Amino acid sequence: MSWKTYLEKAQPRFLDELIEFLKIPSISTSPAHSGDVRRAVEWTENRVKQAGFDDTQIFETGGHPVLFAQWLNAPSAPTVLIYGHCDVQPIDPLALWETPPFEPTIRDGRIYARGASDMKTSVLTAVIACEAWLKAEGRLPVNVKLLIEAEEEIGSPNLESFVAAHKDLLACDLVISADSGQSDKGPELPYGVRGLVGMQIDVRSAKTDLHSGSGGGIAPNSIHTLVELLASMRAADGTILVDGFYDDVIDLDEAERKRIAANDNVAEFVQYAGIKGTIGEPAYTPAERGVARPTLEINGIWGGFQEDGVKTVIPAEAHAKITCRLVPGQTPDQIFERVKGHILKHASPLVECTVTRLPGSAFPYLLPLDHPGAQASIRALKRVYNGQEPVLTRSGGTVPFLGIMNRLLGVHTISYGFSGDHENIHAPNEFFKLKNFPLGQEGFCILFEELANQ
Amino acid sequence: MSWKTYLEKAQPRFLDELIEFLKIPSISTSPAHSGDVRRAVEWTENRVKQAGFDDTQIFETGGHPVLFAQWLNAPSAPTVLIYGHCDVQPIDPLALWETPPFEPTIRDGRIYARGASDMKTSVLTAVIACEAWLKAEGRLPVNVKLLIEAEEEIGSPNLESFVAAHKDLLACDLVISADSGQSDKGPELPYGVRGLVGMQIDVRSAKTDLHSGSGGGIAPNSIHTLVELLASMRAADGTILVDGFYDDVIDLDEAERKRIAANDNVAEFVQYAGIKGTIGEPAYTPAERGVARPTLEINGIWGGFQEDGVKTVIPAEAHAKITCRLVPGQTPDQIFERVKGHILKHASPLVECTVTRLPGSAFPYLLPLDHPGAQASIRALKRVYNGQEPVLTRSGGTVPFLGIMNRLLGVHTISYGFSGDHENIHAPNEFFKLKNFPLGQEGFCILFEELANQ
Repeated sequence: MSWKTYLEKAQPRFLDELIEFLKIPSISTSPAHSGDVRRAVEWTENRVKQAGFDDTQIFETGGHPVLFAQWLNAPSAPTVLIYGHCDVQPIDPLALWETPPFEPTIRDGRIYARGASDMKTSVLTAVIACEAWLKAEGRLPVNVKLLIEAEEEIGSPNLESFVAAHKDLLACDLVISADSGQSDKGPELPYGVRGLVGMQIDVRSAKTDLHSGSGGGIAPNSIHTLVELLASMRAADGTILVDGFYDDVIDLDEAERKRIAANDNVAEFVQYAGIKGTIGEPAYTPAERGVARPTLEINGIWGGFQEDGVKTVIPAEAHAKITCRLVPGQTPDQIFERVKGHILKHASPLVECTVTRLPGSAFPYLLPLDHPGAQASIRALKRVYNGQEPVLTRSGGTVPFLGIMNRLLGVHTISYGFSGDHENIHAPNEFFKLKNFPLGQEGFCILFEELANQ
Repeated sequence: MSWKTYLEKAQPRFLDELIEFLKIPSISTSPAHSGDVRRAVEWTENRVKQAGFDDTQIFETGGHPVLFAQWLNAPSAPTVLIYGHCDVQPIDPLALWETPPFEPTIRDGRIYARGASDMKTSVLTAVIACEAWLKAEGRLPVNVKLLIEAEEEIGSPNLESFVAAHKDLLACDLVISADSGQSDKGPELPYGVRGLVGMQIDVRSAKTDLHSGSGGGIAPNSIHTLVELLASMRAADGTILVDGFYDDVIDLDEAERKRIAANDNVAEFVQYAGIKGTIGEPAYTPAERGVARPTLEINGIWGGFQEDGVKTVIPAEAHAKITCRLVPGQTPDQIFERVKGHILKHASPLVECTVTRLPGSAFPYLLPLDHPGAQASIRALKRVYNGQEPVLTRSGGTVPFLGIMNRLLGVHTISYGFSGDHENIHAPNEFFKLKNFPLGQEGFCILFEELANQ
């Protein structure tokens, strides 16, 4: 029996299993649900064993546990590590759900439940693909390791230290992140994300708030100092004026500029965002600026009197939060130090100014498109989508995991999953388009084949 | 019997009356105390009648009532209007009062009670002086009108319209504001205050908050636009860069610069405020900038994410509040229009920017020191203080009343009262130094004489 026949025959069971998995309220941010999160990890371990993995282990972390499993009986073939998570987002506002979030319901070819799209269906899909190979063909064409965490929805606070502590166990030739999707228009290969570093600026100009009747014209004002500092960091056109900010950026080559231009969705974004136009460095197109150039954004600012009416105060304290999106060549440490240096250099000597790094840094990540894993992914998607060429997409967002695996394990990651567009992730009425369930199973089976054919 | 002998004999009664007056909890901001506020106005009317005024009237306003009284039997003498208020500030935090705020208590030569310094004692002091003249001498040397309001502590919302509606009734040659004080070091003649105008700036850059992963590098950011606008309005040294901001300012002459230099307390202010140094226009001394030059201060700013942690948001909305202190030559309307014009001219065309005027404008006011009222006040204070020359003080703060009387009645105001330094006004344990009670009574009696001798 081929894996394909195996899959065809077992679809009703797989759907029952999916419903069972989606019923577990594994909300990782909620202490009340920590037992459910563990149950989801254990459910996954059992399901992985059932698929044919003998070697499984649940690791404790400072938070929720991590599942690791491996099948390493293809000695001359490459080793791939499949990443996924079995925790889910909170469900509020509950009143907006048409059916309860943990009572999976099928309507119009969709299964509605929290975690359906993000990403229990994709976890099960990958496991099913392994099972189909193992049960139907008696083997997998590549060595497979599975890493399923349960803290992704709270920012994976223990993942980096777990990976650092288990480098040998996790060693592989390629990581496959199943936390990904395809477009309704056809297949996509996401190949790049930006990094991130954030900081808070705190300015103090006096011992206490002052009265502008007695201090106006004499006393420094923390908010004036702060706005001068913030204004000095970015030109009106969006170009960042921090010394050395762009120094280490690896510039775009012509091929990359063409790829970005081919996938330019800025017009749609402008429409969606309700903005009157775009800003940014004149030497780059908006599409390039949105995914492949670094940014510096003020995310929040506060100080002084914020209520109705008038208060003639000279505020002693003012605060702002900034984040920078980073691109290849830049690192969180380097950019934090340069922005901090700019702030401390330009701050008035009459104020105290402190710059504090915020948690949640991430390195930028770019998958080399000539990497054998990238090429295998492209070939696999073309087979799954009847010859349709995958669109190469680069995102302006951040996925810390990609940089972590690259830095700690020295390997690249392909994002390869089958969630669909606009499936209400992180929102009420999350769903998964069920036609992509068998499609994804086939997709992983084919990917394993293509990875073996490098 | 002279007014002096009359005063000496009646001091015990005056103290009893002061205690009675201070017992009335006339907190104007508290609806629960509106009956008490009216009671304080009525108490004052009775006391004024007892002093010898036949012509008294309580006027209703949209808020608390106003007491008017007049004695006009000095046909060839000038007419002065004495201003005061009989409402008081709230009493919280009550736990910090050593004795209850409306149970006046004498300790160490001070009377402790809410309203003792600000300004029931001064109201009674002026009335007693009138009584001493009328009862001892059978006449006042000048014609006297009394205007006692009960809304000063809530910003005198009905005073301007009351004055505008009763110009003939209030017509006079000089206003005496008894809402004033003397220094422990000796007499003071306050002769100038700054004006005020405030506005709020609201910036909107998108329909909704955006994610910096998808919009960073493309979308305008309301906070960046706001800080650019705010930074464009003031140089780092404090000079205001709004076109025309200084155009109508009447510059300081040498005599005025000398007067300001003679009363320079900036070093004390720097110490008190805990600031590392002063800012401001290089062509003026800090003392000049603090009282005689206009200002533009950001009083508050807010927008975007202000909690702990990181949120990679591009905020759609940002807000700031600004007030300007004004000096002679400037008007609230003019400066509002110029600052608004600057903001609208420099705002990015990619954002919506609105500028809204805030309530509470005031004109600047400067008493000409050669004015007969100013000269009479100086002579009176020298007599009261055994020949000590009053210090001429100009304030950086704002007293809307002074500009209102000048604009609506065309008259000048001398500030002439006997509250002392640091008497905890608007704070727990407000008190009045009782030695200034008979001193103030004598002070007003002498002032009337000097005003008649113009």
